[in-house]
Amino acid sequence: MSEQIKYVMTEERIPLAWYNIQADLPVPAPPVLHPGTGKPIGPEDLAAIFPMKLIEQEVSTEREIEIPEPVREIYRQWRPTPLYRARQLERALGTPARIYYKYEGYSPPGSHKANTAVAQAYYNKQAGIKRLSTETGAGQWGSSLAMGCQHFGLECKVYMVRVSFDQKPYRKALMQTYGAEVTASPSEETAAGRAVLAQNPNSPGSLGIAISEAVEVAAQDKDTNYALGSVLNHVLLHQSVIGQEAMEQMAMAGDQPDVVIGCTGGGSNFAGLAFPFVGAKLRGEGYEKIRVVAVEPTACPSLTRGQYAYDFGDTARLTPLLKMHTLGSEFIPPAIHTGGLRYHGMAPLVSHLRTLELIEAIGVQQVECFAAGVQFARLEGILPAPEANHAIAAVIREANRCKEEGVSRAILFNLSGHGHFDMSAYTAYLSGQLKDYEYPEQEIAMALAHLPVVAS
Amino acid sequence: MSEQIKYVMTEERIPLAWYNIQADLPVPAPPVLHPGTGKPIGPEDLAAIFPMKLIEQEVSTEREIEIPEPVREIYRQWRPTPLYRARQLERALGTPARIYYKYEGYSPPGSHKANTAVAQAYYNKQAGIKRLSTETGAGQWGSSLAMGCQHFGLECKVYMVRVSFDQKPYRKALMQTYGAEVTASPSEETAAGRAVLAQNPNSPGSLGIAISEAVEVAAQDKDTNYALGSVLNHVLLHQSVIGQEAMEQMAMAGDQPDVVIGCTGGGSNFAGLAFPFVGAKLRGEGYEKIRVVAVEPTACPSLTRGQYAYDFGDTARLTPLLKMHTLGSEFIPPAIHTGGLRYHGMAPLVSHLRTLELIEAIGVQQVECFAAGVQFARLEGILPAPEANHAIAAVIREANRCKEEGVSRAILFNLSGHGHFDMSAYTAYLSGQLKDYEYPEQEIAMALAHLPVVAS
Repeated sequence: MSEQIKYVMTEERIPLAWYNIQADLPVPAPPVLHPGTGKPIGPEDLAAIFPMKLIEQEVSTEREIEIPEPVREIYRQWRPTPLYRARQLERALGTPARIYYKYEGYSPPGSHKANTAVAQAYYNKQAGIKRLSTETGAGQWGSSLAMGCQHFGLECKVYMVRVSFDQKPYRKALMQTYGAEVTASPSEETAAGRAVLAQNPNSPGSLGIAISEAVEVAAQDKDTNYALGSVLNHVLLHQSVIGQEAMEQMAMAGDQPDVVIGCTGGGSNFAGLAFPFVGAKLRGEGYEKIRVVAVEPTACPSLTRGQYAYDFGDTARLTPLLKMHTLGSEFIPPAIHTGGLRYHGMAPLVSHLRTLELIEAIGVQQVECFAAGVQFARLEGILPAPEANHAIAAVIREANRCKEEGVSRAILFNLSGHGHFDMSAYTAYLSGQLKDYEYPEQEIAMALAHLPVVAS
Repeated sequence: MSEQIKYVMTEERIPLAWYNIQADLPVPAPPVLHPGTGKPIGPEDLAAIFPMKLIEQEVSTEREIEIPEPVREIYRQWRPTPLYRARQLERALGTPARIYYKYEGYSPPGSHKANTAVAQAYYNKQAGIKRLSTETGAGQWGSSLAMGCQHFGLECKVYMVRVSFDQKPYRKALMQTYGAEVTASPSEETAAGRAVLAQNPNSPGSLGIAISEAVEVAAQDKDTNYALGSVLNHVLLHQSVIGQEAMEQMAMAGDQPDVVIGCTGGGSNFAGLAFPFVGAKLRGEGYEKIRVVAVEPTACPSLTRGQYAYDFGDTARLTPLLKMHTLGSEFIPPAIHTGGLRYHGMAPLVSHLRTLELIEAIGVQQVECFAAGVQFARLEGILPAPEANHAIAAVIREANRCKEEGVSRAILFNLSGHGHFDMSAYTAYLSGQLKDYEYPEQEIAMALAHLPVVAS
C-alpha cells in the first residue's frame, strides 16, 4: 500500500453547526456604523435587504449556529470535501514540509462560495423572498448563488463586473444555465450604475460599483433581497465548515498544521479554513504556535497596504460603515486576471484578527502565482483557480523555507476552487503576456484621502 | 435525516483489477485484420505504436487484469467516484423511476478519460517510451492524456480536430497547462494531414484524420508511441472501474439497475459503466432482465444507422481493420457541439454486443439533449458535458415511460464528465442557435460505398 494522499469522511461528518469566531474573540470586533449617525446600526437598518436570520447571525456571539437540515442536505452533494496531501509537490520541491490542501472545487459551481450561497438562498426563501440580487467579480460567487437560488426556487439577478463580463463569457454562461439574469456592471439599470457611466462610459467596473447596483435594486423592491459573497460575518460563518472538516481530517492524517494559508479577496475562503483553528487556539485547545497567513495580490493590497478604518462596502456609499483594511471604496483595481481578489476592503473579522496579530498577511505578484499554479497542476493534476494560486505561491515559499532551515512543518492551505473558467488567464501566463503589478504608493494615498469621516 | 443521495466508498474499494468482458462473451468478437493480408493481426503488427502490455490486454481473455499499484495510486485522487441519486430530477419529472448516476467529472481533467490515460501513460513509461502522440476531439481525451503523461514524465503531443481547436480555446489551454504540445488537425506536420489540406485547405478536421496524424508520427519515431482514448479493447477495459464501483454502490443503495444508460462516441464511457453488468448477466449472476442502452447523436449515428463491417479506424487508412458499426472512415460529421461523439466508427466490443442483442442503441437530437442537460443542471447542480446530455435525454425518456406505465424502475447512467469547457455550446442552446441535425440517408450510403474490401 502506498502513502495516503486523500482523507475523506462520510457525509455524517459534515458539521452540524457553523463555527462563529465572535464567541472566542479576546476583544469584540468594532461595530458596524450607520453612515448618517455614526452610531452602531441595529437589525432594522439591515432588514430592507437581508432576512432577519442572517442579520442575527451577523451579530451573534453564539459559538455554534446550527446548520439547517435542508442546507446540510445540499451540502451532502459535495461535502465533506477531501483533504489531500500534495506528495508530488513536496517531492518536486525537495522539501521536508508536509503540504496538505482542502479542495473546495468539487462543489458544482466549482468553489467554496457554494457553502454560503446555499445557506443564504435558504434563509431568504424561508423569509418569503422571491428574488436575490448580487454582484460578482470573477463569477464564482454569481454562479454559486445562481445554483443556490435554483435549489430553493428563487430568481437570481447578478451584476457582473464589466471587465469579468467581457473576459469570462463561460462564467456568465454558467450563471445563465443556472437560470440567473446577468448584467454587466456598471449598468443603466440603476442610479448607481448610471452615475458611474456618466463619468466614465467605458468604466471597467469594480466590485464596489456592482455591490451598489445590487443593493440598490434590493432596497427598492420588497420581494428582492441582497446577498453578499464575502466580507460579512455571516458569510464567513457559513464557510467555517471548511476548517472544521479540515481539523478532523488533519487528525485522520495524524498531523496538525503549523502554518495555515489562504488567499484573501473579501476574506471568506481564508476565514473558512483558518477561523476554526484560530478559535481553538483562543480557547486554549492547542495550536499555540500556529501561524495563519493571508495572501493577497500586490495589485489589490488591502490587508498589506490599506488603512484600517471605517469605510463603505460599496462605491455609491449605500452600505453601512465597516471597520476594515481598505483601499478606499472608489478603488478600481487594474484589470489583472485574478477577478476574485479585487475588492477594495476586507472582511472586518479578518482585519480585526490582523490588528490583534492573530494572523499575518503578505502580497504576491501574479506571475509568481501563476508559475506556482502551473507547477501545482502539472504535479497534482488539479488546475487551481487564479485566486488559489496566491495561496499556492505562499505555500511554496513556506516549503522552501522549511528546506532552507531543514525543518519539517505541516502546511495546510485552502484550494478554494478550480480554474476551469479562468483558462484565458493561464493562456496569458503561458504566452508570457501576464505582467506583475504593484499599486503605486501615491495612488493608494489618493484613494485613501476620500475615506468617509466618521462622527466619533 | 433526509433521503440519501450520495453513495461514497473509501479508496480501498477502488477495484484491484479491471474487468475484461472478453472472458464472458458467448461468441468471441471478430478479430482485428491486417489491411494488406486480410488475416488477423499479431502482436508484432502493433508493436511499433503500442507497448506490449497494452497489446496483451487488447487480446486477453482473462476476466481480471490487475491494476498496477502506481496507476491505482493516481486513481485514488478522485476514485472511487460517487454514485448519486437524482432526487430533484425525479421529483421534477414526477416519475416513479429511481434515477442514479455515476459521476466521473471529479477527475482533474473532468471526465472518465483520465481512467485510461493514466494506465496508458504508465505502461508506455514502463516500456521505455519518451513521448505519446494522440488525437482529441472535444479535448477531454487530450487533456486527460496530457495529465497522465505529466504523472509519469512523458511528453505529450496532441492533434486536436480543427473545429474543436477553434471552438474550445479553454480545452487547448488546459492541455498546454498540463505541458502538452497541441496542434490543430489536419496539420502540415504529417503526410496524412498534408493530403487532407491539399484537397480542402479549410477542412474542419475529424477524429479519423487526427488519428491518422498521431499514428503516423508514432510509427515513424521509436521513442514515440500512440495512445487512443476510446474504441480499442484495452481502453474499454480500463474504464471498467466505473461499472465495478457502481455495482457496489447500487448494492449500498439497496437497489439494482433495471436500465443502464451511457452515451456513445467511441464507446468507452458506455462500456465502462455497462460491461460489468452485462458480464454478470452473461455469467448468470443476476441482472437477467437488465436493459442496456447506448445513446448517440443523430448527427453521428454509427450504431443506429451505420454498417457493421470491417473498416479502418482512421481516414488515411493507417490502422488495422476493425469490425464495427461504421459510417465510413472518410466521414466528416457536421460541426455540432458534441465534440466527443463524432467518431465514424464504434468500439468493436460495443458493436459486437449490439449484434448479440445484449445492448440497445438510440439516436437523440441535440436540442433535446441540451434541454435535458440544462434541466439537470438546474435541478442537480452539476453541469454535464454535452456528451453526457445524450445519456440524460435518454434517462428522461425512460423516466417518463415509467410514469406513463406507472412502473418504478431503477435507471443508472454515466455522467461521464462536466461541461465546464463546453459553455459556448450551452450559450448557443440558451440563445436558440443550436439546431437539430439528422444525417441524410444518401450521404450515409455514399460514405459507406467506400468501405474497404476485405479478403475473405
